[in-house]
Formats: sequence, structure tokens, C-alpha cells
Amino acid sequence: MIDELENCNEIHNFSIAQLEKLADECRKCILESVSKTGGHLASSLGAVDLTVALAKVFSFEKDKVIWDVGHQTYAYKILTGRKDRMSGLGKKGGISKFLSRFESKYDHFGAGHASTSISAALGISTARTLNKDDFKTIAVIGDGAMTGGLAYEALNHAGHLDENIIVILNDNEMSIDPNVGALSRTILNISSSKSFNILRAEIIRQIREHKLPVAITKMADKVNDSMMAFFTKGIWFEKFNFRYFGRVDGHNIKNLVSFLKLVKDLRGPILLHISTQKGKGFSFAESEPSRYHGVGPFDLITGNPVSKDTRGKSYTSIWSKSFSQIMAADKKVVGISAAMLNNTGLVPVQKKFPDRVFDVGIAEGHAVTFAGGVSTEGLKPFVVIYSTFLQRAIDHIVHDIARQDLPVRFILDRGGFVGPDGATHNGILDLTYLRMIPGMVLMVPKNGRELQAMINLAHQYEEGPIALRFPRGKSDNYYEKDQSEIPELEFGKGELVRSGKDVLLIAIGTMVETVEQVADLLNEKGFSAGIINARFVKPLDRELILEEAAKVKCVATFEENVKIGGFGAGVLELFSENMILKPTLQFGIPDWFVRFASREDQLEMAGLDVSSILNKLLDFIERIPDQL
Amino acid sequence: MIDELENCNEIHNFSIAQLEKLADECRKCILESVSKTGGHLASSLGAVDLTVALAKVFSFEKDKVIWDVGHQTYAYKILTGRKDRMSGLGKKGGISKFLSRFESKYDHFGAGHASTSISAALGISTARTLNKDDFKTIAVIGDGAMTGGLAYEALNHAGHLDENIIVILNDNEMSIDPNVGALSRTILNISSSKSFNILRAEIIRQIREHKLPVAITKMADKVNDSMMAFFTKGIWFEKFNFRYFGRVDGHNIKNLVSFLKLVKDLRGPILLHISTQKGKGFSFAESEPSRYHGVGPFDLITGNPVSKDTRGKSYTSIWSKSFSQIMAADKKVVGISAAMLNNTGLVPVQKKFPDRVFDVGIAEGHAVTFAGGVSTEGLKPFVVIYSTFLQRAIDHIVHDIARQDLPVRFILDRGGFVGPDGATHNGILDLTYLRMIPGMVLMVPKNGRELQAMINLAHQYEEGPIALRFPRGKSDNYYEKDQSEIPELEFGKGELVRSGKDVLLIAIGTMVETVEQVADLLNEKGFSAGIINARFVKPLDRELILEEAAKVKCVATFEENVKIGGFGAGVLELFSENMILKPTLQFGIPDWFVRFASREDQLEMAGLDVSSILNKLLDFIERIPDQL
Repeated sequence: MIDELENCNEIHNFSIAQLEKLADECRKCILESVSKTGGHLASSLGAVDLTVALAKVFSFEKDKVIWDVGHQTYAYKILTGRKDRMSGLGKKGGISKFLSRFESKYDHFGAGHASTSISAALGISTARTLNKDDFKTIAVIGDGAMTGGLAYEALNHAGHLDENIIVILNDNEMSIDPNVGALSRTILNISSSKSFNILRAEIIRQIREHKLPVAITKMADKVNDSMMAFFTKGIWFEKFNFRYFGRVDGHNIKNLVSFLKLVKDLRGPILLHISTQKGKGFSFAESEPSRYHGVGPFDLITGNPVSKDTRGKSYTSIWSKSFSQIMAADKKVVGISAAMLNNTGLVPVQKKFPDRVFDVGIAEGHAVTFAGGVSTEGLKPFVVIYSTFLQRAIDHIVHDIARQDLPVRFILDRGGFVGPDGATHNGILDLTYLRMIPGMVLMVPKNGRELQAMINLAHQYEEGPIALRFPRGKSDNYYEKDQSEIPELEFGKGELVRSGKDVLLIAIGTMVETVEQVADLLNEKGFSAGIINARFVKPLDRELILEEAAKVKCVATFEENVKIGGFGAGVLELFSENMILKPTLQFGIPDWFVRFASREDQLEMAGLDVSSILNKLLDFIERIPDQL
Repeated sequence: MIDELENCNEIHNFSIAQLEKLADECRKCILESVSKTGGHLASSLGAVDLTVALAKVFSFEKDKVIWDVGHQTYAYKILTGRKDRMSGLGKKGGISKFLSRFESKYDHFGAGHASTSISAALGISTARTLNKDDFKTIAVIGDGAMTGGLAYEALNHAGHLDENIIVILNDNEMSIDPNVGALSRTILNISSSKSFNILRAEIIRQIREHKLPVAITKMADKVNDSMMAFFTKGIWFEKFNFRYFGRVDGHNIKNLVSFLKLVKDLRGPILLHISTQKGKGFSFAESEPSRYHGVGPFDLITGNPVSKDTRGKSYTSIWSKSFSQIMAADKKVVGISAAMLNNTGLVPVQKKFPDRVFDVGIAEGHAVTFAGGVSTEGLKPFVVIYSTFLQRAIDHIVHDIARQDLPVRFILDRGGFVGPDGATHNGILDLTYLRMIPGMVLMVPKNGRELQAMINLAHQYEEGPIALRFPRGKSDNYYEKDQSEIPELEFGKGELVRSGKDVLLIAIGTMVETVEQVADLLNEKGFSAGIINARFVKPLDRELILEEAAKVKCVATFEENVKIGGFGAGVLELFSENMILKPTLQFGIPDWFVRFASREDQLEMAGLDVSSILNKLLDFIERIPDQL
């Protein structure tokens, strides 16, 4: 059936049985392609039946479905003309693992970070009203994303504007990790009968259309809040002026279709609450949804990963182990994550120290300000968040932490390029946005060994905020040694890897290893290249850098961060301040959004691979006037 | 009575009549000092009775009150030993207009931005539990601040943790502007009897302490959600696992005291809802609370400002007038503000175009993503937010706007130093955090005339996001002329103010005027100084800057922004890329938080006044080696 589908509008005429068959085919298609490409399996399987039901009741050509995050949309991609491109999921030149306006006219608002769908859909609805256009807007948001403050701000504003908007709460009782928050516990208890929902829709419709006598309307309005709530329990949403319908089984297509038809033409803000199961239809994913949230290629029969890379240890696991040791040694240490206990390696730590590890939900801002409160009582909070998600909490770091000199430790996982997740998930701004904050200390380790040392240093540091970022993936430079052999880092001091006479390469983090290869190649060409592993983006090791820079004809800086305002800009600022007039070249990420591809490809696209660097450096050296 | 008070704990023994007298004295003291210094009058007057009642029931020595924003705390300052320092409110070396941990041991968590108090108080409560300490934590938050997503994230987490925490919702039915949001409309309807509240407290206590038979406890739990809600209407908070009490008249000290006593020793999260009136006790402020939110010195008898500076027009009013003209000419233009219609000059615009001006509440993140949705439908949104508050929405600009090339216009009011409001309100990071975002265009006008031209340019620009920032206060360089004489700006082009032979001064925004004075003084000393008014922070006018830089021996950059990663760093990056080896000195804000003082004092503290700049420049020129 999928292969015969020329336009998604053909689905309007499908019978329920045909829709069910279509859903089965979508599931098979998703399983086949994701088992080969990797991707977001569990969420997309959970949303197949909803997608098919939406296609039946709404027109994807005309109406606008805004999916939160976008990782549940593989059936939507398949039904909107992208079936043949599914094999390129997350691959360079292929299609996104999320939605993207650049990819398809059906993707009305791209995402990747959570909780944006209601805001965007409300903006679209408002513009529709001003433009006097006629289409439906539907935001589909998970219960996890509903814990984000942005979703609340949007609900509140939507109720105030009284716009026509349908919000579908896709409740799988967990986001990536089992869901956090008092609200989710309450939602779990919500249920109500279909006949009551139908009655309710009819009353609301008649009130809206002024078909009832005024006196009855007034009375109904008055009774509405408490009476309706008494029966439906959807009152939390009703308080925002949303009309609540549900809870509907999100895998019963017949019911879904009838509920979608029920709310389709109602005026004002509507909340339709559906229950789905992450991983639905694939037993391994049903029983271990977290493991199958985002997966690499796997075997469809066994559910096992196709190949497991056993070289080295991941940075995340090194962080996790080191942090666990610190937690054991110091009862004042507290770990705080924003709905990412699993992916930031905190699950085993929480098992050992359940009282001192906190998952606050998808709420990065709160995580930071909460940590600030914790620190004022003499405890030592570590806030562990992906680099890209910490962008949500910059003001909280500035206003609540740095401005008050509070000793909060920020651990940024997934700093730099992240590969297939693409532009929404690359952590390439953190060196700039953390460096600009007065009083912030910022470290980047060159390998897992150094990461351990920096975690220890962060633990000891009490003067104010301190941050460190590490990349996604393996630390190949990491070797298992005794705990005692972890290098003692000196605060604010870099490492002189080697001294040079012609060119000084100042690198941070992952770029140190790259630059060592570049230096060897430069040596082969007859240039003596010095290397500094800066370790500290802030404060810079001024003495070491100035001393080594004095020995060479030119300097280059290296970072997996945007060039604008980043680590290299810091070196330029240092040179400016000290009137150092050396040709200095910045290597970093250019001023555009680098899209999904493998990490290696992304580095190449940014000109940060060994060969691009070497060529550019040689050209640079050549252009230096002789008199210098 | 105030003068005899040696320690706030003495208030425990006061009778209700004495408390009422104390409150009167606090009001008089606030009026006397704020009428001389200026400050946050209306909010502080509204919270006097609450403050006195808190002092009676809780120990300010031991228990911790966390005030949201901090602009309602002048009575708290007076009762915690700062009465004599009230004359220095917002003045250099004086005390803050908000709370500050650096100022007093009674200020447990400083603020200035809204919605942080529950997060911070929850962090403190959690740490208290881990430390096995014994004190109460009380967060006091306004209904306006409750519209912020951070407050929601914290409520949700607090209910989940089930910590002992008391949240007092200080509901004056407006924040700075009349309150926005569906939720606030609902809250207004909440009311309940005192006897019911007492019964409720007793039942909750007995359930918590397991004093009731298990069967009854279970039944009470079951009935709780719907039955309690049916009677109290506080169910919105109950859904977060908060126990709701209220609504209490926040100016009836006797009632306040008895309610505070009622909830003081209850376990778990408590929400106490009180009603207050902004400006209570000062008739002018009661009738015009917005006008008396933040005031300059005023006459106690007439309520009028002591002196009104009539020179020039404020940047905000120029923005407002220009925007109004654009709105009239182009029906596709939409204005969006976050609870700041009044202070960002949008009130008159909204009066003319009520359908196209949106106040989303204290919800900067939503304002931005909502604007993104609006822009996808071909409308032209202008998002108008203070520079410091836009820090709350950086991820939304990156992820929702810039990454999708959406044409959203960002108008940043209060860029640079803001004077008495101090470090929490200075807008000194925006040039860095906006410049780092791929695809962003960023302009800063040197005066009101140029501001108009930039607004027009932003209106026409459709390629992606574009931002402009202007300072607080007057544009003295602005002259009323015909609309037709507004300079036509060319995209990405700066203005060559004058060409020089010795030194090139490249300035942006307010610094252009300063630098013109500096250049004259340099000329007097025999140095020929060129001046570029850059206009665009991004993209830089590369041709103009490189051409003029080639004519001089040295360069200096000027900006009212942190030096780190800012405008000057952009010039250094440009020079690095083009191998320009000129001594280049950055003038900007150093790497520490500049505290409250007058704007002039703040500029001097940052070394950005004419004389500091001149001295540093002369020294710099002197240090340039002869051979250059």
C-alpha cells in the first residue's frame, strides 16, 4: 500500500482496516530502514498509529502538524513522500533524523530540542487568523516535553489568545528516561469515557456557536470549571482555557480517528490526550524503550547492535566512573541532570547514591538555578547537560550562578560535532557563550585521562562557577591506569606538548590529537611546529602562550567550536592586549550551521580534518611576508 | 518602633496592633527614601504587610525567605538592618534595588530577573534535607513571575521531590504590566473560606503523620484531587502535589499571621495564595501602579517627578514612533513583547493596532519561538525585549530562528549599562551572544536618527534573523527632521566619520559619540585620528575597516559590551583572517560584573569615559615600537 501511495491525501478514503494495514507497513518500513541506518526507533514506532489517523482526518497538504522534537516522525516522513530516502537517515546528503523545513514542505517547523511545538503552532495559528487563512494547526507533544517551561509558557499564552489550536499530548509515560515531575504522575490518573467526551464536545460547540439561550450559556460557563473537571480530571489543562478530551488509546486507530473527527472543527484551544507505548510493535523496543530510543544499526531478529566498537572508552563512561568515585569520597557532592540520566552516564551513579542524584525533567533552566540554591548551603552540585541543551540555561548561569560567585560545576557532554543528530544537537557554541560570562572557568580535556583530572579539579574548586566540556564518543587516547596516575592539573595552566621554532599550534580538546598529526606532517615539510594543549579556555595560560609565541614566526589556534568569539578569539584578545604582532590563524567552525553527517564528515566540512588544516597552514605560512 | 528594633527576631513578640504600626512605619520609611532616591515603589508598598507578618511567624535569622526578583523587598531591607542605608538605594557604593548576597546575610539568593525563587528555594530545601538541617524555606513569587516557564519547571520538580517548601503566591493581578495568561484569569476566581482551610490543614497533617486509620487515609487520598478541588479551586497547584491555601487578604496582618502559622509546620510543598495591591498606602501608586513600579525621585504631596529631563528623546520613544509608522504602512508587521509593553514603548502601538501587538507574559523563550511560527506564515514579527532578558531565549534564537533562516526581527532595548538597576539588568553580553549565532545580522545605532534607519532596514530584511540594540535613556544626537531625511543605510556598511593617519578608532553605538570627543583631544595632542562608526557588528564592513586600517599605525575598537567575544573581538578576527599586523586595542567592559551606579559612573568603572580612554590610548600609542 505504501508503495502505491502517490499523495498522502489519498489516505482520507481509507477504511479503518486499510489504515491498520498501512500502519503495519509503516512499522515494517521503519524497522527495516532504522535497523540499517540507526535512528530514533522507539518514539517513531509509538507514533505510527497516530500519524496514520492524522492522515485520515486532516489534510497534510493543507493543515499543519507541528511535531515536537521530531524524533517520532518517521511514519510521517514515509507518508509524505520520503519513503525512498529513509535509507539516508542522518547520513551526509540524506534526510534528517528530525524534521527540517529545508527537507520537505510538510515540515512546517523543524526541531530537535524539546518543548517548542506549542509555541510554534500558536505562532502559525495566530498568523493564520491575521492572514484570514483557513487551515488547522495541530501540535503533537510528548509528556516528557511537557515538563519544559516553554511548553507551559505556550499553553498559558494559547489559552489567553483563545486561538483555534489542537494540542495532542502523546503520553508514553516517559520521554527519553522515565518521566519526571508531579504533573506526569497526575496525568497518569486521567481517564474518561468516550460518550462523556462526545457530550462534552457537543455542549462546547453549541456554547461557542451561541446556539444555546444566553442564560444556559452563562450557567454552563459557570459550572464548567468545577463540574467538568469533576468528571474529566482534565482540569489542569482546562485552567489554561484548553478544552480537554481523552484519554484515548493511541494504538486504537478507530478510536483515534473518531476522536480526531470530534475535535477537528471545535473552536478555541483543544487538548487531546492519547496514550502510546514507546517501541510499539517491536518487542525488544517495547520492553527496553530507553535502549531503543536512539539506536545504531541493529539485528531485527536478535535486537542486538550490528557491530559494537570496543576500542577505548566513551568520554561519558569515564565521566560517570570518575564522578561515582567522587560521590563516594565526598558526601557533599550532588549530581543534577535534565531528563538525561541515561545518556549522561548518571544511571549507575544514581543507583549507588539515590539521594544525591536529581533528574529535574526537561528543564535545563531549573536545573541550573536549583543547583545554585543547593550550592548556597555548602553542597557541591555538578550539573550535567549536553552542550546544545545548556543553551537553554545561559541566563540562569549568568544571573543566578556567576553573578553570585556560586560554586556550581557544569559538565557539558556532547561538546563539538555529534554526527547524525545534526545541527540541532551540535555543541559548537559553548566555548563562546561560557567564555563571555564574567567569573566563569572553562576547561576542555584532550582525552579521557585529562577529563578525570579536570573532574577532580572541578570538585575541588570553590571560588565560583567552573565548566568542562567533552565530546561525544570514544577517547582513544585513554589508557587504563591506576587512579593515582591521573595527572594533577594546575589551575589555569596549559601543557606544552612540544616547543617549536616556526609555527605554534595552540589547541584545545579533541583538536590536540589532530594537531599532533599536523605537526608531524609540518616537520616532514621542514617546519618546526610547537604545540600547546591549552586545557583552559578561561583563564588562558597567558605566560605559556606568550612565551612560546615569542619563539615562532606565526601562530594558529584550534577548536571544535565556532570561530566567532571562541577559544581562538581569546588568544587574539590576549595578543591584542600584549601588542603581540604575529600572524595568527584561527581554525574552528565557520559561521554556518553544519548539518548531519558522520562526525568525521562534519569535521571535514568545517575544514578541521588533518589534510584541510595542513593545506591551509602551509598556504598561510607561505603568505607571511619575509621581513617578519 | 523601627528605630528601636535591634534584631528582627524581636518582632516575634509583637501584638497584631504593634505589627500594624510597624507596617505603617515601614511604608513611611519606604516613601520617604524612595521619593528621594527613586526605586521600586509600588511592589514594595504592596508587600509591606506580608513582610511584617513573615517576621512575626518565621525567624529571619534562621528561616530563609527567597524573594522573587527582589523589587518588593524594601520593607524586608528595613527590618533586616538596612534602614539607615536606604538613602543609598541604587547609588554607587550604596545598597541594591534588588536583593544581593554580597549585601546582607539575610539575602539568601539574589535576583533581578523573574521566576527564579522557587527553583532556588527548592535547591536550598533539598540541601537542607541532605545536610539534616532544620529551618523553613519560603519562596515569595508574584503572579507575573508565575507566567515564566522556570517557575513551572520548579513547581513540577518540587511536587515530585515532595520537599518541605512554602511558596507564597503574591497576587497583585499584574506584574509590571497587567498580567497576561489564561492561568492568571483562573487564579483571580479562586477564593475559599478560612474555616475550610483550617479543616483542610488538619486533615493533611493527620494524613501525613499517619494518625488516621489506613483505610481512611486511602480514601482521603482518593477523594482529595477531585473533592478538595471542587471546594477550594486551588486544584491547579494541587496537580503539582502542592497543598493549596488561600486566598488571603495580603493587607490583613491578623489573617496573614494566622495563615502563616497554619502552614508553617505542615510537611510537603505548600502554596499560600495571598492578594495584595501594588502601591498600597500611597494613593497615587494605588491608582497608577505601572507608573510607580520603578520611579525616579518624586514629590510626596503631588506624586510628580522632582525633575523631568526634557532634553532629547528617549531611544525607546523613537523606536516606538518608528515602529508605529511601519505598522501603519505594512499590515504584515507584528509586535511581540514579554510582559514589557509599557517599558518598551509598545503601549501606544498596541492601542492603534490591538490585533497585531502581542504580550506573551514573562516568557522570553516563548516570545521568540512564537515569533518563529508567525514568520513561517509570511508575516514580519518584531520581538522587543530588554537585552538582559533576551539572555533567557538564546537557545530559541539559535534553534528555532537562526537554524531555520527565519526572518524574525529582534529589538533589544536597554543594551549596555542601565545605571541603578545594576548587574542583573546591564545588557552587556548581547553583542557576543548574538554575534556567535550563524546567520545573525546585528546592528547598533549611534543615535536616534540611525535607529530609525535601522528599524526600516530590519523591516525590509527577509533573509533571516536580524537584531538591533539600543541603550537606555536619551538620544542627545537626535534631531527632529522630516521622515524623508532618515539616512538610507546600506546593508553591512559602516560610516566613515573621518579618515586619520595615526590611529583608527572603530566604534559602535553609544561609543561613537564618545570616540568623537576622544579624537578631538587626540588631534590636540598632535595625533590624526580616524573614526569609523561600524553600524554593523555582523557582518562587519570589511572593506571600509581594512582600507582605513591600512592608513594608520594602530587601531582601537570601542563597544558598550564585554570585550570577550564582542565587537572588538570581531575586528581582531577580521585582522587575523587578513593577516593585518597592526597594534589593536580593545575598549569594552572588563570581565567582571559592573554593579549599580549611575550610567556615567558605570562607564567610568569600565574605563569607557573620555578621559580614561584618552589616557589609555596615549599610553598605547607611546608603547608602539618605532619600526612599525
